[in-house]
Amino acid sequence: MQVPSPSMREAASMYGTAVAVFLVILVAALQSSAPPESPFPYRISLDPEGSLELSWNVSYTQETIYFQLLVQELKAGVLFGMSDRGELENADLVVLWTDGDNAYFGDAWSDQWGQIHLDSQQDYQLLQVQRTPEGLCLLFKRPFGTCDPKDYLIEDGTVHLVYGILEEPFGSLEAINTSGLQTGLQRVQLLKPNISVPALPSDMHSMEIHTPDILIPGQKTTYWCHITELPDGFSRHHIVMYEPIVTKGNEALVHHMEVFQCTAQFESFPQFSGPCDSKMKPDHLNYCRHVLAAWALGAKAFYYPEEAGLAFGGPGSSRYLRLEVHYHNPLKIQGRRDSSGIRLYYTATLRRFDAGIMELGLVYTPVMAIPPQETAFVLTGYCTDKCTQLALPPSGIHIFASQLHTHLTGRKVVTVLARDGREREVVNRDDHYSPHFQEIRMLKKIVSVQPGDVLITSCTYNTGDRKLATVGGFGILEEMCVNYVHYYPQTQLELCKSAVDPGFLQKYFHLVNRFNEEEVCTCPQASVPKQFASVPWNSFSRDVLRALYGFAPISMHCNKSSAVRFQGEWNRQPLPKIISKLEEPTPRCPASRVQSPTSPTVVSIGRSKS
Amino acid sequence: MQVPSPSMREAASMYGTAVAVFLVILVAALQSSAPPESPFPYRISLDPEGSLELSWNVSYTQETIYFQLLVQELKAGVLFGMSDRGELENADLVVLWTDGDNAYFGDAWSDQWGQIHLDSQQDYQLLQVQRTPEGLCLLFKRPFGTCDPKDYLIEDGTVHLVYGILEEPFGSLEAINTSGLQTGLQRVQLLKPNISVPALPSDMHSMEIHTPDILIPGQKTTYWCHITELPDGFSRHHIVMYEPIVTKGNEALVHHMEVFQCTAQFESFPQFSGPCDSKMKPDHLNYCRHVLAAWALGAKAFYYPEEAGLAFGGPGSSRYLRLEVHYHNPLKIQGRRDSSGIRLYYTATLRRFDAGIMELGLVYTPVMAIPPQETAFVLTGYCTDKCTQLALPPSGIHIFASQLHTHLTGRKVVTVLARDGREREVVNRDDHYSPHFQEIRMLKKIVSVQPGDVLITSCTYNTGDRKLATVGGFGILEEMCVNYVHYYPQTQLELCKSAVDPGFLQKYFHLVNRFNEEEVCTCPQASVPKQFASVPWNSFSRDVLRALYGFAPISMHCNKSSAVRFQGEWNRQPLPKIISKLEEPTPRCPASRVQSPTSPTVVSIGRSKS
Repeated sequence: MQVPSPSMREAASMYGTAVAVFLVILVAALQSSAPPESPFPYRISLDPEGSLELSWNVSYTQETIYFQLLVQELKAGVLFGMSDRGELENADLVVLWTDGDNAYFGDAWSDQWGQIHLDSQQDYQLLQVQRTPEGLCLLFKRPFGTCDPKDYLIEDGTVHLVYGILEEPFGSLEAINTSGLQTGLQRVQLLKPNISVPALPSDMHSMEIHTPDILIPGQKTTYWCHITELPDGFSRHHIVMYEPIVTKGNEALVHHMEVFQCTAQFESFPQFSGPCDSKMKPDHLNYCRHVLAAWALGAKAFYYPEEAGLAFGGPGSSRYLRLEVHYHNPLKIQGRRDSSGIRLYYTATLRRFDAGIMELGLVYTPVMAIPPQETAFVLTGYCTDKCTQLALPPSGIHIFASQLHTHLTGRKVVTVLARDGREREVVNRDDHYSPHFQEIRMLKKIVSVQPGDVLITSCTYNTGDRKLATVGGFGILEEMCVNYVHYYPQTQLELCKSAVDPGFLQKYFHLVNRFNEEEVCTCPQASVPKQFASVPWNSFSRDVLRALYGFAPISMHCNKSSAVRFQGEWNRQPLPKIISKLEEPTPRCPASRVQSPTSPTVVSIGRSKS
Repeated sequence: MQVPSPSMREAASMYGTAVAVFLVILVAALQSSAPPESPFPYRISLDPEGSLELSWNVSYTQETIYFQLLVQELKAGVLFGMSDRGELENADLVVLWTDGDNAYFGDAWSDQWGQIHLDSQQDYQLLQVQRTPEGLCLLFKRPFGTCDPKDYLIEDGTVHLVYGILEEPFGSLEAINTSGLQTGLQRVQLLKPNISVPALPSDMHSMEIHTPDILIPGQKTTYWCHITELPDGFSRHHIVMYEPIVTKGNEALVHHMEVFQCTAQFESFPQFSGPCDSKMKPDHLNYCRHVLAAWALGAKAFYYPEEAGLAFGGPGSSRYLRLEVHYHNPLKIQGRRDSSGIRLYYTATLRRFDAGIMELGLVYTPVMAIPPQETAFVLTGYCTDKCTQLALPPSGIHIFASQLHTHLTGRKVVTVLARDGREREVVNRDDHYSPHFQEIRMLKKIVSVQPGDVLITSCTYNTGDRKLATVGGFGILEEMCVNYVHYYPQTQLELCKSAVDPGFLQKYFHLVNRFNEEEVCTCPQASVPKQFASVPWNSFSRDVLRALYGFAPISMHCNKSSAVRFQGEWNRQPLPKIISKLEEPTPRCPASRVQSPTSPTVVSIGRSKS
């Protein structure tokens, strides 16, 4: 770790300003533990106007995040923090506020009604406050875990950041209620993996797949679909890296982007550039689903491991690509033009291994269902030892990235690897998963899967706002539980997923009828969604469904492509036996706790001249 | 709160001693927050020899316990602490140890293998170390909760204290493993309620019910039964208080004592004084079960509220009493004589209310069963709104004390009061309940129960060492789930308990057969214990039994005495609907955290002269 740059050590300089209500001067000298090397590699706009810019860096040795919050036009203060799913209630906050005379910085939390309280333990540590030409710049740090039950535990996966703007002074911190403020949320992966950039080939070329200077629709949500083509005769290449191209000024609007390759089964695809839900959209575009690249807000460039690349081009693959851009425009800004997209870096010198993508989790079938009004119902899909034994090479495969996927009710996703009946390691876990933030994530550590290993993918759903059961399926109101794992060397195994045996599900419907008033049609012609819709949802039918999924044999999809199974018997397979589970990660408290003041940090201030 | 006595403020004096390996001097000045008023009202011997004596006091305002540990013959050190159920593994410890040169005091913990580690956060705070003629006296304090995940959370109910003797110096704390030490455990209620002593009547008399100078058997466990009589013509009195009489020297052996009144249905009972399991014990003694007084190790005097007393004597009640004394003699000490017992204080001036005892929880019936190999299976018994509506007076009753009861596999017991479908308050909770420590406990706060209220009693069992289901019943290998609540004014309601509807249990056996191989006999003549013994215990049959108990209607025992029901329909009653549960208590961190050193406390020492 390097000594921080001199400018960061300087005492803050003071700038008079007519705009600010108050001036803040340096309140805390930089601690001996300085922020690590490259000051702030990650950056994101918190609000749609881009007036609150967060930069951060992660020190894994200190288990601490260094934040720099740039407030462009400070009014009477600002609050920033984290919460389970982006609520402003029960949030862990850091607040900069003024009572008109003095200004304060403090570690705080909001209760279930949004009222703010000072935290008894001050774990956000202010390092520096500085006026810069761009705005007020706050530098502070926080350990991942603090062992304060009022604090958010910063974990791998999605973090819901929240912010609020204080427009006027408050007599005290307790006088602030988040419900009266302009607030918002931003999803981000704070704990970016600490991976060194792989060496890139000297004969690397790049190509940009981007929207053609379009007008972003003035509506909250737009998925833009744009069809483009690879050059004629484009031979087989390896994509080794890609990065986002975001049109300057639109950083807060471009939410996520994906590049798909179309299927080779059609000779050609029509030109199209418009909203994906447009009635004008050609049907063929539904056949452009093979992911080449995916980016979401807050993500940086994606690098393939040095020994692998993603093949595209050449015979047997389509020349047509589909770019999908999700514009998130809550303020319904009109007239903004955009040419965002993804820049692919590729080489003709093929790397040692082709990378592949494998689908783990649940088959898209209604037999896997979630009762209504559940806040944390778990469904689990298996990739069994029998399938990995058959389909993986003797030396195994190496998973280096993962993209989790559910539909609207998904709240958590985790994939665990088990060997010899024991859970060994987590492949990817997101305890604050959001269906609105599905990025491909590099794993912190490559996970090797051997033949005979089991991969267990569990999704947790919240159906609190549903009246009927939510069944598995392709529809946006149906559910999925999928982990797309990126791995090498590529194998024929594309799908390794499961679902409960349909015969046992019928036994379940019979059983529910025995304990209730024969409300479920158990005749052979009834469809499973209809049967689920007729289940009387009481504690017994819920608990027994959970018990069924934890006990009944499964049907395996151990497939080369979505339609072609590997040879073997895949129906009525036993559930993998797991004799030892991974322990839940226990929050680590900061090893050496700094003495934490129980009152907000000093704030000597000068009044503004206005 | 008072200023501490001067002697406690003095710097410690040093005593040379040939016995001790090292001398410890005062290492920490008394903190500004001095221990509260009466220094140490509670006292207990930790070890059977009585060489480790623990005294303590509770400050509810500071949420802190002050401990004084007197070590009679200090060798190379001592460890003391707490753990979930008295294990020396995964224990929260305070350790006084020497490496031969220096001595140290530190907050530590033992891992799952018993190896000791220094805690990263030092929450046991040493206040004073002093040599006294009785031994080395350590004074230290600890908050109830520390928010350190390695620390034990001190809660209401039973606490398992553990200790260990260090016979020789250790090079480092990490070199100590509890498995190599002389260790032991002691159960105690640390958080004694902070109740002021009620005024006592001027015409109070006392009577001692004690063993007649018996010889304590030289075996680990003895329940001694002693029959005694009230004086001829003893009229109706109110017991207003009682206290233990423990023969001096036997403090570590007398584990618990109870005084029962015999049933009035027999004219007389034979004399007997001997082990309760003796073949010589008259059968009649099984009819002496009405509790008059109960004491267990660590408990002090029991006071009835000023407005109530427990009636005994007079017409309609038996003159015969049974005293039961549990001697716990793990060292199998021989030849010790004992006259321990209980001193009852009573008055002829009857108080305004008779106190009563009511039995809440589960009916003693095999329909309530726990599968084998469960580590935390919960059974719940209800006292329904219908029963309290019928049986309680319009102004309700007031519960002031509670005695929890299970057989050998009980691990937790809790009773919660619900009103209008909402859980309102905990009547009594013990999350570290032990069947070996069943004392009557005063409630911290009297709980008033209104007609229409629901009382829900849940017991958590560990059947990890059982091969077959454990069914409900009277046998010691069967289970119970009972809360004896002490209340006033006395009503006719003696039992308010429930059990699952037997018809629904039969549906369960049918269902298990449908999902398995028809292993359970579902013929009408099969006994429920036999049926449970034949259940194939897989995840499904376990989960569905749990679901059944959470769903099926119940049979209520809403009884005047064990055989006489109140009038009404008590079969196939719906389970009480609970729409909002009490939140789990979240551990509160100490409000103002003292700066905690991350290394053990200094220890300047002088070497011994030996």
